[in-house]
Amino acid sequence: MMKKLYDYQKDENVNLFLLIKSAEEKKTRNNKPYLALTFQDTSGEISANFWDAKPKDIETFKAGYVVKVDGKREEYNGNPQLRLNAIRLAKEDEPSNPELYVERAPIHKDKMIEEFNKAMFDITNANLNRIVRHVMKKFQREFFQSPAAMKNHHAFLGGLAYHTVCMLRIARSLITVYEDLNTSLLFSGIILHDVGKVIELSGPTATEYTLEGKLIGHIVLISNEISKACQELKIDENHEDVLLLKHLILAHHGEYEYGSPVRPQIPEAEIIHYIDQIDAKMNMMQAALRKTEPGEFSEKIWAMGNRSFYKKTMDIKNNMIASQSKP
Amino acid sequence: MMKKLYDYQKDENVNLFLLIKSAEEKKTRNNKPYLALTFQDTSGEISANFWDAKPKDIETFKAGYVVKVDGKREEYNGNPQLRLNAIRLAKEDEPSNPELYVERAPIHKDKMIEEFNKAMFDITNANLNRIVRHVMKKFQREFFQSPAAMKNHHAFLGGLAYHTVCMLRIARSLITVYEDLNTSLLFSGIILHDVGKVIELSGPTATEYTLEGKLIGHIVLISNEISKACQELKIDENHEDVLLLKHLILAHHGEYEYGSPVRPQIPEAEIIHYIDQIDAKMNMMQAALRKTEPGEFSEKIWAMGNRSFYKKTMDIKNNMIASQSKP
Amino acid sequence: MMKKLYDYQKDENVNLFLLIKSAEEKKTRNNKPYLALTFQDTSGEISANFWDAKPKDIETFKAGYVVKVDGKREEYNGNPQLRLNAIRLAKEDEPSNPELYVERAPIHKDKMIEEFNKAMFDITNANLNRIVRHVMKKFQREFFQSPAAMKNHHAFLGGLAYHTVCMLRIARSLITVYEDLNTSLLFSGIILHDVGKVIELSGPTATEYTLEGKLIGHIVLISNEISKACQELKIDENHEDVLLLKHLILAHHGEYEYGSPVRPQIPEAEIIHYIDQIDAKMNMMQAALRKTEPGEFSEKIWAMGNRSFYKKTMDIKNNMIASQSKP
Amino acid sequence: MMKKLYDYQKDENVNLFLLIKSAEEKKTRNNKPYLALTFQDTSGEISANFWDAKPKDIETFKAGYVVKVDGKREEYNGNPQLRLNAIRLAKEDEPSNPELYVERAPIHKDKMIEEFNKAMFDITNANLNRIVRHVMKKFQREFFQSPAAMKNHHAFLGGLAYHTVCMLRIARSLITVYEDLNTSLLFSGIILHDVGKVIELSGPTATEYTLEGKLIGHIVLISNEISKACQELKIDENHEDVLLLKHLILAHHGEYEYGSPVRPQIPEAEIIHYIDQIDAKMNMMQAALRKTEPGEFSEKIWAMGNRSFYKKTMDIKNNMIASQSKP
Amino acid sequence: MMKKLYDYQKDENVNLFLLIKSAEEKKTRNNKPYLALTFQDTSGEISANFWDAKPKDIETFKAGYVVKVDGKREEYNGNPQLRLNAIRLAKEDEPSNPELYVERAPIHKDKMIEEFNKAMFDITNANLNRIVRHVMKKFQREFFQSPAAMKNHHAFLGGLAYHTVCMLRIARSLITVYEDLNTSLLFSGIILHDVGKVIELSGPTATEYTLEGKLIGHIVLISNEISKACQELKIDENHEDVLLLKHLILAHHGEYEYGSPVRPQIPEAEIIHYIDQIDAKMNMMQAALRKTEPGEFSEKIWAMGNRSFYKKTMDIKNNMIASQSKP
Amino acid sequence: MMKKLYDYQKDENVNLFLLIKSAEEKKTRNNKPYLALTFQDTSGEISANFWDAKPKDIETFKAGYVVKVDGKREEYNGNPQLRLNAIRLAKEDEPSNPELYVERAPIHKDKMIEEFNKAMFDITNANLNRIVRHVMKKFQREFFQSPAAMKNHHAFLGGLAYHTVCMLRIARSLITVYEDLNTSLLFSGIILHDVGKVIELSGPTATEYTLEGKLIGHIVLISNEISKACQELKIDENHEDVLLLKHLILAHHGEYEYGSPVRPQIPEAEIIHYIDQIDAKMNMMQAALRKTEPGEFSEKIWAMGNRSFYKKTMDIKNNMIASQSKP
Repeated sequence: MMKKLYDYQKDENVNLFLLIKSAEEKKTRNNKPYLALTFQDTSGEISANFWDAKPKDIETFKAGYVVKVDGKREEYNGNPQLRLNAIRLAKEDEPSNPELYVERAPIHKDKMIEEFNKAMFDITNANLNRIVRHVMKKFQREFFQSPAAMKNHHAFLGGLAYHTVCMLRIARSLITVYEDLNTSLLFSGIILHDVGKVIELSGPTATEYTLEGKLIGHIVLISNEISKACQELKIDENHEDVLLLKHLILAHHGEYEYGSPVRPQIPEAEIIHYIDQIDAKMNMMQAALRKTEPGEFSEKIWAMGNRSFYKKTMDIKNNMIASQSKP
Repeated sequence: MMKKLYDYQKDENVNLFLLIKSAEEKKTRNNKPYLALTFQDTSGEISANFWDAKPKDIETFKAGYVVKVDGKREEYNGNPQLRLNAIRLAKEDEPSNPELYVERAPIHKDKMIEEFNKAMFDITNANLNRIVRHVMKKFQREFFQSPAAMKNHHAFLGGLAYHTVCMLRIARSLITVYEDLNTSLLFSGIILHDVGKVIELSGPTATEYTLEGKLIGHIVLISNEISKACQELKIDENHEDVLLLKHLILAHHGEYEYGSPVRPQIPEAEIIHYIDQIDAKMNMMQAALRKTEPGEFSEKIWAMGNRSFYKKTMDIKNNMIASQSKP
Repeated sequence: MMKKLYDYQKDENVNLFLLIKSAEEKKTRNNKPYLALTFQDTSGEISANFWDAKPKDIETFKAGYVVKVDGKREEYNGNPQLRLNAIRLAKEDEPSNPELYVERAPIHKDKMIEEFNKAMFDITNANLNRIVRHVMKKFQREFFQSPAAMKNHHAFLGGLAYHTVCMLRIARSLITVYEDLNTSLLFSGIILHDVGKVIELSGPTATEYTLEGKLIGHIVLISNEISKACQELKIDENHEDVLLLKHLILAHHGEYEYGSPVRPQIPEAEIIHYIDQIDAKMNMMQAALRKTEPGEFSEKIWAMGNRSFYKKTMDIKNNMIASQSKP
Repeated sequence: MMKKLYDYQKDENVNLFLLIKSAEEKKTRNNKPYLALTFQDTSGEISANFWDAKPKDIETFKAGYVVKVDGKREEYNGNPQLRLNAIRLAKEDEPSNPELYVERAPIHKDKMIEEFNKAMFDITNANLNRIVRHVMKKFQREFFQSPAAMKNHHAFLGGLAYHTVCMLRIARSLITVYEDLNTSLLFSGIILHDVGKVIELSGPTATEYTLEGKLIGHIVLISNEISKACQELKIDENHEDVLLLKHLILAHHGEYEYGSPVRPQIPEAEIIHYIDQIDAKMNMMQAALRKTEPGEFSEKIWAMGNRSFYKKTMDIKNNMIASQSKP
Repeated sequence: MMKKLYDYQKDENVNLFLLIKSAEEKKTRNNKPYLALTFQDTSGEISANFWDAKPKDIETFKAGYVVKVDGKREEYNGNPQLRLNAIRLAKEDEPSNPELYVERAPIHKDKMIEEFNKAMFDITNANLNRIVRHVMKKFQREFFQSPAAMKNHHAFLGGLAYHTVCMLRIARSLITVYEDLNTSLLFSGIILHDVGKVIELSGPTATEYTLEGKLIGHIVLISNEISKACQELKIDENHEDVLLLKHLILAHHGEYEYGSPVRPQIPEAEIIHYIDQIDAKMNMMQAALRKTEPGEFSEKIWAMGNRSFYKKTMDIKNNMIASQSKP
Repeated sequence: MMKKLYDYQKDENVNLFLLIKSAEEKKTRNNKPYLALTFQDTSGEISANFWDAKPKDIETFKAGYVVKVDGKREEYNGNPQLRLNAIRLAKEDEPSNPELYVERAPIHKDKMIEEFNKAMFDITNANLNRIVRHVMKKFQREFFQSPAAMKNHHAFLGGLAYHTVCMLRIARSLITVYEDLNTSLLFSGIILHDVGKVIELSGPTATEYTLEGKLIGHIVLISNEISKACQELKIDENHEDVLLLKHLILAHHGEYEYGSPVRPQIPEAEIIHYIDQIDAKMNMMQAALRKTEPGEFSEKIWAMGNRSFYKKTMDIKNNMIASQSKP
């Protein structure tokens, strides 16, 4: 299999195809133009400076293009940087499709849809089933594109759907441990809990907060969508099951200080909060450890209290010591 | 003028008409029945025990009736208590109308409506004007009945409307000091900021939280009403002025930890938060100081960091020392 | 099936067998002796006063005896209280075994042992397997007796083992969702995480903190037991797997302020913290809701931020409205 | 009207008179001397490097001089920077008065003095009136020069007086809404609340904390000045009105954690705290929004919880959409 | 030696002289008069009810009198209470001096004065020496009477002076460990740090906060006294040594949230804060442990984070196990 | 006496022997190699760039060598920097021993050992004496090398032992002020309280946290060593004195949020916490003030709430004004 960007060590020569994520024209203190580039593939990102860039170069190497890069992985102020020796656009018969270089959910959209359908089947409460179906239909396209967050966790194409699928999987096992949990409520709440993010965030690439996202927030946005769904479906908004579904959404951040206007007041609300936390944090730890050598500590994760995490040298599956060297 | 309940000092004989606020049948440790009564007039409340109550007494003295009471103001565990000597129902030609004994907003409903109309006139933005008018029409009756809170501040009949009127008065002066403030937004936000409380609270007497109030909260409830108004009035919900109005409502608690899902992001939102604080706190301090003698400290106010407040001996208007004695 | 204590409503006549949990001789203000009793069965506890208790009564009705009680459920200061009409000791042919009246884990000890054995089988790392086996053998008897906490959650006979079993069940499903998690570490950490409580707490009845429990705490106590196990089993204490196991124990409260001297630094440590939280909170909510009528809110749970929880009227299994009345 | 510094967009050629705010002689890594300049006019500040500065240049272009500048507005690390093409001193017949380029209070000192006099007139309490007059006389000159803070809010020439005037305006309206408020106390407290800053801060330019400012703080400094005034005016320091005035000063930060040694214990103290907050925050928001385009968010304001604020596209006065383009 | 009140165990008969600390006339629910008494000796306080008190009894047994009491130590709601069998006034030839029963500093006033004089001798800085002497002379009488706090620590006659002496002793040793510390500053700061309490508190018996104490607080009160001393002694208030002395006083609570308007900014200020903490906390722990049996935990101390403290069974001096029984 | 690095002012020519603390090969943006050097002597550290370094230079000037440096003290971005004119290795007959340039405890190891022996003599409790002796013997060599912390306080060779000696000195005086304190416990606790740092930290140079240090922490590590000592010495681990010693260690950070798994529950534990704080903070303040001119404020100390400290101009010993100029 082809080597990826982060398979290269410091001071190793790099020779591979990469996507230009951003390209900014700058000037040195001596007023000479250069291109500040960021390359990416699915293993991560790296910056590089293209010194003495000619106008033609600036025209050629723009964000969104795949290029063949020849250079060396170095470090600048503790961060990896690529020293460029040569760069050219990828040809048509080369892997020039930008989509190949973007990080995405590790399972396929079709598989995720299948899991959602299975969950919908278990939402036996008629009101909830209709509401969830209605809302999801409206936002389906964006839902399977959107990241789950600006940064922090699941910040990749399809991240929102993948995050939701993982939460459903955990919920599915918890209802066997705690039989009091109401499956219809739990699954409905999980599926809808973050759908507001497709309104809050601008999309999967160059993600930004929208004006609505900033001024209203995804929690209230989706609560409002549930109201609209009720009106269109002629469901009484004040019926207990609708009220509880809204409550699940509004309370899922768990505490006022995390932006929930109410705190969880039914067990399903408390549980969704914890499942959300588990999946977000597992994702952040996995992402950090993926870039860490066995026996080392990861970079600090700001959203987890600035902790860094240790990568075991024990072999995960066989419980044997992992080999330190890489082939 | 007739003396009120709290014009009497400790150990003074009390002889006046009072409303029975609550009447609960209880038993002593020795199993003898008695009535635990709470009386009220507009000056406050006091409890009293009707020992050896006969079944007929229990039938007669129920919550909501006005009675003539003869007794003595005493103290029990530091709280005022009334020792009952005699009690009888008020006659028709006596002041037997319960409404005379209930605390209410200090200005008349008609005067308040007039002030609201004046404010509506200054909401020159057409969308905002229509939305506010629509929502207020829907909740008008309850709005002028409802207290502004369960306890703490403005917990009386008409308290919500009175609180809102006072806020409008402050806002009216602030827009002359800060010309950048948008009058339409500021007035609309103030009028609607707490209307959700008529859904959140059960009404002016024996006030409780409703299920919606607990699970959704008045902030999100009124934000949802604005959406509905838009749909009925065919106003685009995503238009900036609607978005900003919603933002004012959602952000008016000022901080996440006080239950706002977003923090203020326009000056009008920040200002409404402060006006709300000023009026709520002035009301709490006034209520506590009304029961305090000059030169003394009031009881502690839990909602103000458990502080107690000093009642000046200086005459407020003439800056002379207030006479300690009361005529 | 026989009616339990909490199947009776207020003002209903009560006639059933109960265990005397505590019996304290007291005197009234007028110096007359009485017995302050607390009765219990598996549905909960209730207090009662036995007025004018004779010396013989005081001799007879002691903690630990089962009695036949005739009385009436009343309320005193908002708490349920039993008015005693008649009381006598249970006879031998009646249900006089005290164990029948004590709350205990809802699954049988044998079933729990079976689940532990299954988990041990999945701890394929030899060091961890031997350490866990060694520690559990030492504390096995107390482990299956001990509550999981003084009060708050799982405060019943076998509560510690039951809490641990539920955590293992959740863990078992999480390792299918997150394949990176190391089963040996996760299971070892869960099994041992609270074993220190058998040293920290005095036992299943009249539970108190021991001196060691107060001065050292269960977290450090069990960490120390792991060291001892290593010495006895000739396992190098500084080997990574032992170090990580200790870390799991020390970090499982998640944050310094909850008494963990280190914060989680491997994913398994973070996950155990969350599983622990989920199971403790589900147990507290279930216990509170068990005493709550559908459509009502439970008492406030101090250990959950003083929240109270709503009991749905929706039928849990069939998603239909639960009948309010009880047969 | 002449264009100001911040009327120029990025990459526009700049040609205007500016004041040199600071000029520092530096050396490049290659040891060549250059001048690091900061220019300002009333619209803001910008930095510029004068490369290869000759000794004569260094002599000529010093802080405090007005210069004619020819250059181009660029950006360096996200901040605006001026690329210098030409620079020369302003001639006498050009706008060479440095005072023209310094930000100052938006209303004239005479107008402010008038408002203070009006307020003094309303301080009818004789003691308070004499004390305020005495203290203000002592610090009058510095008071009308001083900024209200080092940075954050009203950090300009006359800012302290302007801040105080705005607070008086708000107070004047609040006493009509809340008739219990004592005008003498409220106005005296506002006028003196921050006078200590003229001792705490070193003056309007290159503002620094003085040693007294750091070790004692403006709150205690002015409280001490009130004591001195009492001694000089033979007013009893322990008289209630003096005590309350001091209390207003000491408590005006509202909470211990903001540096008040006591918390507000009379309504006037609570109200001054809020008026102070409102005016400080309005000033910070206005300053940030002045540099923001309609439809955009301002830079983050650290002193307001790191929030950024949205600049409406609605026309403030006419409630119409503001034109995005600038003439 | 005569047995003291707290040498008696529960249910033991008590027969000894006690001071009446307070005597309040009350009525039972059945309207019968009784006297609610609090007795004290140097070992502590206990309450007792004198049932069916005759008017003559009420006349006789007033606060401030010493009585001979015959009764039994019992418990009521977990607190010790005395059941009275007989009570009479102490005769002249009996230990009838009330001063014998009041808790006071464990060392004599003369000894304390001696230690202060020794400290004054080490304040070699002339300004500081004169200021401290001046202030202490003014408040000397109250200083040696006053408690150090309302409750919490050193709440006894002479407690303030004793607390200050202990702090001087610690300071004396710290200057040998840290030679950089300035003796003049350190000793001056300690001697004056709490003198403001003689203005803040109403005196050694029935201690209350004064109006000045509440509105200004002892920290600012004594800072103001230093200013006055300077004026009277013609010392320049802005001289560095005076400024630093004031800073020591203002900063000695260590943090804003504990009421210091500035935080420590010289080492002496930081150190005084810690010495103050050590002595206050040692005093609180000693007081709590004095009432605790070896091998038991004390009552919880609210001012120390609600912790309770363990009383060692080890003999303090000889490191042997203390005998549990008391001779 | 020879001038040290920090005796030189800005822009002064520097000519002295220094130790190379670190030497890193770097490249300019233009790809030219240079050496980024850090020099140190006992007065502090300074950085310098050796431009156009030849391969031979890079070979010669390595960390650990003493060099003769000729240059000029300048400033770069507010930090001192050395401009290099000439550099050569120190010769054998010059002060070429690296140990002469490293900061170390201000008193000699032998003197410290003497103080420890004196303290051991006062630990009259046999168990404690044997345990402390046993643990100290095991870690003696590292103990006298180790710093007391990574950075912050006592971060120098022998810092841990010196910190401990200072704490013993303070403790020795406190036991004369508070006679209840148990000397054996107090001294044992102090000696062992931070010994875990020799396991937690990697050593005196290039100090890093070890894996055990990160995952277990020095508090639990030393608690475990006490257990091991007990096993080897056949002392019962559950004996009260051992339990209390462990408690002292575990509780010495004072609060959960500082990493103590239990809070102090005996006076000795509380006192050790405060002594530790005093010595750590005195050390940090001294270190910061050593680099500060009289009349100036030090740099901010992050570990002390980001405060900066004022360096008095008063002469410490004679209380006279220190001369600002330096000979």
